[in-house]
Amino acid sequence: MVKFSFLQPGKPAVFKDRFVTKVNEQLIPYSEGETGEIGLIGLPYSKTSISLSQASDAPKTIRASLSSFSTFSGERDRDYEDVKILDFGDVQTHPTEMEESIDRLHISVREMLEKDACQRYIMLGGDHGVSYPSIRAFKEHYGEIGVIQWDAHHDVRNLDDGGRTNGTPFRSLIDGGHLKGENLAQIGIRDYANAKEYHSYTIEKGISVYTMEDVEQKGILPIIERELERLSKLVDVIYLSVDMDVVDQAFAPGCPAIGPGGITSRELLASISTAASHEKVKGMDIVEIDPSKDFRDMTSRLAAAAMLRFMYN
Amino acid sequence: MVKFSFLQPGKPAVFKDRFVTKVNEQLIPYSEGETGEIGLIGLPYSKTSISLSQASDAPKTIRASLSSFSTFSGERDRDYEDVKILDFGDVQTHPTEMEESIDRLHISVREMLEKDACQRYIMLGGDHGVSYPSIRAFKEHYGEIGVIQWDAHHDVRNLDDGGRTNGTPFRSLIDGGHLKGENLAQIGIRDYANAKEYHSYTIEKGISVYTMEDVEQKGILPIIERELERLSKLVDVIYLSVDMDVVDQAFAPGCPAIGPGGITSRELLASISTAASHEKVKGMDIVEIDPSKDFRDMTSRLAAAAMLRFMYN
Amino acid sequence: MVKFSFLQPGKPAVFKDRFVTKVNEQLIPYSEGETGEIGLIGLPYSKTSISLSQASDAPKTIRASLSSFSTFSGERDRDYEDVKILDFGDVQTHPTEMEESIDRLHISVREMLEKDACQRYIMLGGDHGVSYPSIRAFKEHYGEIGVIQWDAHHDVRNLDDGGRTNGTPFRSLIDGGHLKGENLAQIGIRDYANAKEYHSYTIEKGISVYTMEDVEQKGILPIIERELERLSKLVDVIYLSVDMDVVDQAFAPGCPAIGPGGITSRELLASISTAASHEKVKGMDIVEIDPSKDFRDMTSRLAAAAMLRFMYN
Amino acid sequence: MVKFSFLQPGKPAVFKDRFVTKVNEQLIPYSEGETGEIGLIGLPYSKTSISLSQASDAPKTIRASLSSFSTFSGERDRDYEDVKILDFGDVQTHPTEMEESIDRLHISVREMLEKDACQRYIMLGGDHGVSYPSIRAFKEHYGEIGVIQWDAHHDVRNLDDGGRTNGTPFRSLIDGGHLKGENLAQIGIRDYANAKEYHSYTIEKGISVYTMEDVEQKGILPIIERELERLSKLVDVIYLSVDMDVVDQAFAPGCPAIGPGGITSRELLASISTAASHEKVKGMDIVEIDPSKDFRDMTSRLAAAAMLRFMYN
Amino acid sequence: MVKFSFLQPGKPAVFKDRFVTKVNEQLIPYSEGETGEIGLIGLPYSKTSISLSQASDAPKTIRASLSSFSTFSGERDRDYEDVKILDFGDVQTHPTEMEESIDRLHISVREMLEKDACQRYIMLGGDHGVSYPSIRAFKEHYGEIGVIQWDAHHDVRNLDDGGRTNGTPFRSLIDGGHLKGENLAQIGIRDYANAKEYHSYTIEKGISVYTMEDVEQKGILPIIERELERLSKLVDVIYLSVDMDVVDQAFAPGCPAIGPGGITSRELLASISTAASHEKVKGMDIVEIDPSKDFRDMTSRLAAAAMLRFMYN
Amino acid sequence: MVKFSFLQPGKPAVFKDRFVTKVNEQLIPYSEGETGEIGLIGLPYSKTSISLSQASDAPKTIRASLSSFSTFSGERDRDYEDVKILDFGDVQTHPTEMEESIDRLHISVREMLEKDACQRYIMLGGDHGVSYPSIRAFKEHYGEIGVIQWDAHHDVRNLDDGGRTNGTPFRSLIDGGHLKGENLAQIGIRDYANAKEYHSYTIEKGISVYTMEDVEQKGILPIIERELERLSKLVDVIYLSVDMDVVDQAFAPGCPAIGPGGITSRELLASISTAASHEKVKGMDIVEIDPSKDFRDMTSRLAAAAMLRFMYN
Ligand SMILES: [Ca+2]
Ligand SMILES: [Ca+2]
Ligand SMILES: [Ca+2]
Ligand SMILES: [Ca+2]
Ligand SMILES: [Ca+2]
Ligand SMILES: [Ca+2]
Ligand SMILES: [Ca+2]
Ligand SMILES: [Ca+2]
Ligand SMILES: [Ca+2]
Ligand SMILES: [Ca+2]
Ligand SMILES: [Ca+2]
Ligand SMILES: [Ca+2]
Repeated sequence: MVKFSFLQPGKPAVFKDRFVTKVNEQLIPYSEGETGEIGLIGLPYSKTSISLSQASDAPKTIRASLSSFSTFSGERDRDYEDVKILDFGDVQTHPTEMEESIDRLHISVREMLEKDACQRYIMLGGDHGVSYPSIRAFKEHYGEIGVIQWDAHHDVRNLDDGGRTNGTPFRSLIDGGHLKGENLAQIGIRDYANAKEYHSYTIEKGISVYTMEDVEQKGILPIIERELERLSKLVDVIYLSVDMDVVDQAFAPGCPAIGPGGITSRELLASISTAASHEKVKGMDIVEIDPSKDFRDMTSRLAAAAMLRFMYN
Repeated sequence: MVKFSFLQPGKPAVFKDRFVTKVNEQLIPYSEGETGEIGLIGLPYSKTSISLSQASDAPKTIRASLSSFSTFSGERDRDYEDVKILDFGDVQTHPTEMEESIDRLHISVREMLEKDACQRYIMLGGDHGVSYPSIRAFKEHYGEIGVIQWDAHHDVRNLDDGGRTNGTPFRSLIDGGHLKGENLAQIGIRDYANAKEYHSYTIEKGISVYTMEDVEQKGILPIIERELERLSKLVDVIYLSVDMDVVDQAFAPGCPAIGPGGITSRELLASISTAASHEKVKGMDIVEIDPSKDFRDMTSRLAAAAMLRFMYN
Repeated sequence: MVKFSFLQPGKPAVFKDRFVTKVNEQLIPYSEGETGEIGLIGLPYSKTSISLSQASDAPKTIRASLSSFSTFSGERDRDYEDVKILDFGDVQTHPTEMEESIDRLHISVREMLEKDACQRYIMLGGDHGVSYPSIRAFKEHYGEIGVIQWDAHHDVRNLDDGGRTNGTPFRSLIDGGHLKGENLAQIGIRDYANAKEYHSYTIEKGISVYTMEDVEQKGILPIIERELERLSKLVDVIYLSVDMDVVDQAFAPGCPAIGPGGITSRELLASISTAASHEKVKGMDIVEIDPSKDFRDMTSRLAAAAMLRFMYN
Repeated sequence: MVKFSFLQPGKPAVFKDRFVTKVNEQLIPYSEGETGEIGLIGLPYSKTSISLSQASDAPKTIRASLSSFSTFSGERDRDYEDVKILDFGDVQTHPTEMEESIDRLHISVREMLEKDACQRYIMLGGDHGVSYPSIRAFKEHYGEIGVIQWDAHHDVRNLDDGGRTNGTPFRSLIDGGHLKGENLAQIGIRDYANAKEYHSYTIEKGISVYTMEDVEQKGILPIIERELERLSKLVDVIYLSVDMDVVDQAFAPGCPAIGPGGITSRELLASISTAASHEKVKGMDIVEIDPSKDFRDMTSRLAAAAMLRFMYN
Repeated sequence: MVKFSFLQPGKPAVFKDRFVTKVNEQLIPYSEGETGEIGLIGLPYSKTSISLSQASDAPKTIRASLSSFSTFSGERDRDYEDVKILDFGDVQTHPTEMEESIDRLHISVREMLEKDACQRYIMLGGDHGVSYPSIRAFKEHYGEIGVIQWDAHHDVRNLDDGGRTNGTPFRSLIDGGHLKGENLAQIGIRDYANAKEYHSYTIEKGISVYTMEDVEQKGILPIIERELERLSKLVDVIYLSVDMDVVDQAFAPGCPAIGPGGITSRELLASISTAASHEKVKGMDIVEIDPSKDFRDMTSRLAAAAMLRFMYN
Repeated sequence: MVKFSFLQPGKPAVFKDRFVTKVNEQLIPYSEGETGEIGLIGLPYSKTSISLSQASDAPKTIRASLSSFSTFSGERDRDYEDVKILDFGDVQTHPTEMEESIDRLHISVREMLEKDACQRYIMLGGDHGVSYPSIRAFKEHYGEIGVIQWDAHHDVRNLDDGGRTNGTPFRSLIDGGHLKGENLAQIGIRDYANAKEYHSYTIEKGISVYTMEDVEQKGILPIIERELERLSKLVDVIYLSVDMDVVDQAFAPGCPAIGPGGITSRELLASISTAASHEKVKGMDIVEIDPSKDFRDMTSRLAAAAMLRFMYN
């Protein structure tokens, strides 16, 4: 029985082409016992940012940007509408207790993983500080972990000057014994965006570092392939951590720490596709998008496009 | 059993003060048999606009703005959290068939009224063209209708030059026999915003017209009171039609036809409060907000505030 | 013979309601021998501004804003479509020669007045510096001149610190013998927006000064009426000089020197109406609108509305 | 006789370097009997858009952007100031009758072509829906037609779900028998921007499809050259249809359907240059620019630059 | 000896009129032993905000806005260039330790007061949470304290739901015994912006509450005068706490919680002037301006204008 | 002795990581006798611009953008914190005397060079007109001069049509005998951005011109290397003049004359690095950034990144 001719209370009125499946339509709120290919969780926290950041708003804008994409890849002639995405929602953080909030992120990622409901997971930040609790949870669940980090910055600052900020996640992970230095690869590191002390730290800990000059000279795809091969021998699971400021400011204008000389949108999408094709890759976070600084949600759209390259393989 | 500590899949994570009821929390998607005080419906259509307009996006931003308001009036020491608002959703319009879309608006308002589920109704435009199908539906349901229109413009243009646009709703209603001229009161009409021909039309049809000069001289509240009294003797039901461009551009920067010399936000809110206190008033539409032109959704916030003055009485 | 069904090469395609005359349609490029009620000229110069200003773009945006208004006043039941407005165009200034540019403004206003083509004239700035050459030209053409200046500032700075800037027009006029101090009335002067030295200068020269406190206490209309009466006994012609920063920043957000505590849009429009009703009033300039800083051309729209109050009387 | 020293009523005051010819100065309003190299027409319609679009404003901003370019190519050491551009103006559409408006576009392009006044034509949209009437008119005038379409999308949606929208022009053309599938080449098609059903349709109809992966692998110029050669054997006339959303959102931020991973501004300009060098190419449309969403008219500037590559060969 | 003709390394190059003293030129960095009329301190903290806020940037923009004002009041014919303003700088907060940051605010205001260097103090927030440590420090230094609060909100939320946020300062102060309920006056409280529970709390604690309706009916100046008289009998010192969201969104568009129906800029400035004229008034904070949300720093300009009304008496 | 716990009057409160040296911290206001590697001077003038420009604001935003960069290059494993940058401040220009202002720029650069305090210098414009006085001063100080100019435009317009504008610096230099045509190399010249007459002038004077097509075909680095080698044989000193509009509008959205088809941010940075590695290179100016037109100071950030490539070698 249709109650109304053109109204569906509780559902938005949007134009529907019967042959098009929008990615956002594939998101199903997780319910007990449900399983799917992809698990999605929002980690909306950015009070740990050194500079002012509203990155905590990004899970909302990235999810909304999924409505700009369909499930079909023409290049592969493959429709991924069968890929079920379970949405676990956003973690409820605390307005004034910062450590408590970080704990909640950790607990929530762990609780999600413990459901064993999905094959792969996407974590939407938030600032880069959310990778610390997220990667810890992955380590605890899957065992030895390797990380490929897209970033202009090392993010291995000391913790004495400001606590556990968005500049410290990999320092916290390595010093805390959750991640071995040699199991971390950093791609897209920029000149004049880091300090000598932290460069030395990466050498000392055996972190694999690829600068923009490396990307320019060797190409980003061969770099990713090499690291996948190297890491896959050392670890049980590989985690992708995508700080959007690795991308040039022209292509990702909504990051707090925008700057020139980064990778292009095509380089980002192709490199994530390549990385995601490896079976040990189980998780990816996307961080450092501040929607209040963006232009037409461009950076969130790029993030959504990156999600597709991870999900559809 | 709580499945997750800090996650609620399918619900957004927002800060909740246990003592605060946000108005948006009061919106309940209508379901068969449900009753409430207020019925809310979106009429998201603005392709009838003469100038380019994205007013069809306003039902979304106005609803979202309700989250900035609580249910409590300190002036009356009254919490209206018991006022149930049934949300009938937004009418699904047609991308390319314009008359079909107007019919859908008409049918949808009528179907909503026929449920007899609520005491009063709010229609969110859209451009002012939506008042034509909406008021027709009210007339068909309630009988003889009176309208108080807040507007800088008469909206009685001829239909030959452009068909049924956002400049013609009251012409269509009067010429179509749905509304008598003497049953229409127009408040806030501005100089140099209308044509002599249409001014003559208002005189000929017996429309009650109050210019900004009248508002300045007599005050807006006495004008409203006088018209309520006059109309209530002539009609079965009174309908408020609020074109937000009656407000000065400083207070309502998001209308397509912004201009200086209009009423203030306080004058708008107080006048709607006064009008809504009359028991014959059963419906109100709010039209002509184009969110893409607005600053910080100011005009949608003002519309939401106007809704409260109508709903809580 | 109609060459095309729906094309008119050389004319823009805009919706036309047969009964509406838009004010911009009334603008006729001046041609030799033509006469009309109003002469309009653009004085697009703002390199004299102390702070960075693109006020030289305002003649374009104000003219464009005229298309938002019709020729009909409902309050007076009068259609002014018979009022012919001759547009003399914009003065071609020089990219790098500043004194030369000011001379061109002076020469151009004078040449326009010498045509004796119109009864009244509107000069569109530019910054307030354009009032110096403009008022000089009026003085030369009409004889003894009186000026009513809407402004938050005295504009009587010394010329040694920066030459003939937008802060000096009335100093230049008075010290140059073109305008007597007692023939100048300043309305809307704000606290903390001027210097003691210049306050003293106004006293010394006998300038009539009304502060915002005066406006608040006495009302702007009685002030204007008093000054019209006073000046009309002293001078041959009265010139209105409207610096839009007299208006509160909420109503005129596009002025270079915006600030709080100014007059409202209604106070501006009503006061210009009152002033323009005096027959000795022959010219008005509108200055200090920088379209690049504005929001939705609000300030240009207000300027256009002010023009109507001047033209239609 | 010069009437004024620095005024030219009816002409804007702009700085003029005697040796520079701006492209906008080359636009001559068409008058009966006039001939020229290029015919220009505006098709300002976007009510057919599925999503809200103000693309109907683009003819104005693209024409205005021509003032940023001169007629001289240093690479070819050639001044094209002799290339006469006849401007046929913008089609007057109807505010509320959609099919009527599409008819007017069709009639107007046909009437323009029937004048046989120019060698080549540029049509400025509007949304992509305008290509349907435009290409039909070309077909009727020139005979068998081939089309090279720059686009992220196939634009062959079914017509049942929304009528003749901006998602259907090539479906309408092919199903209506105006264009053979094999005579259509699509360049820059993106993954996750289309549906499997429509991908299948392109295969079934024999459309030549090149994805972004093809562009990345083969280069855009070789692709264009191959298609020019192929089409020139099959058709009488080749038409270029440029949907600006083929360009990456960083380079064309003002399209309604922006997204990452598209071609660069250099790839667009070079590929249009290459295409335009073929003598069978007689027409080009540029569509899907919504100036209200753009940043500093960047996308209109890119469109204007694309026009030059088409006009000057 | 002048080293350079037109360079002053270390000082910005700004135009200087010899007779104008800009207020920002009066700011002297505090140094040991220095005394002055006004002490100025920045409390740049807003991580306590419930919603995302960058109010911590406001001390910078408000100070910068002082350069738009001079030291001269024409209404009083008084130049306040002799009023020395000692700038104590901005408190260095901690990136991740929130309680530590609040302590630093408290310690810093207390340390400033203990210098006994000034007669009056201005504290620039930050969000309203900074008033808790600031008013505590005033209480400790001066004795029994009274507060006049300009605000749309009561700010007496419970602390259990989110800790010490920007919604709790007056609850924290009253429950902590630092401020008696009867010593608090709240001006400009808005309907539908508060909860019944907190309204009851204000009654229970004897807080003096004036709603917008009170302001509309009685006028804001008589209200201020009555409260000054009442409080002056009860307390040793009066503190003004100005939450800028008391102002209507049209006049203060840069507050996180903007809304319609508030006071005007003139009402704000006049009421602060009146309040500041009382000798027991020793401190004022200005809070809840988020410069990233503002338009042309309008709200910071209004804050700077409010500072002048407080400083110059 | 620390006077305050968390306050440093006169210094901004910013987060400090003990291991990070921000470039802006390296700026030392020049004082007599001081020496350093780099001298920095602001030439904040743009009233010479043909179109409206606020490029005079760029020295402020570029300096501020230095705070986004550190002194460390990972690619070279080198910390440049020992490179001392002496800041000579900004030239005080005159509000209304244009020639006087240009003289002041000339005198100031010369006075700076005469101090012999630094090895290399950076001049921050302002529009491109500032290169004329700046390069003259370099010529006078160092002898025969060569210039590499990054620009979309030749900048050799005639001086009769507008005097010494931002379109004439290299014409003024060559015709004035300060620079030989063969000692000038222009990189990135764009089609349809120049006039035939000026193209001819570059040929006649023997200027080395590289168009975007050259950049596309040969690569920008080989071009720079060839010109360095050629020029170094002819001149005593090489000066880099970087007009940011050489960069594509997507990467440098804040230039007055933005357009598509320019070089990328990576091409700019790499080419400046290459150029700066030559020991005869002693000066660089960066011009044509108008911060009021920019998005998030992107163009100023790119300029700051370019400065680093010049300073750190
Ligand atoms: Ca990071
Ligand atoms: Ca980063
Ligand atoms: Ca209306
Ligand atoms: Ca209206
Ligand atoms: Ca002035
Ligand atoms: Ca002024
Ligand atoms: Ca398309
Ligand atoms: Ca498309
Ligand atoms: Ca508050
Ligand atoms: Ca508040
Ligand atoms: Ca240049
Ligand atoms: Ca240039």
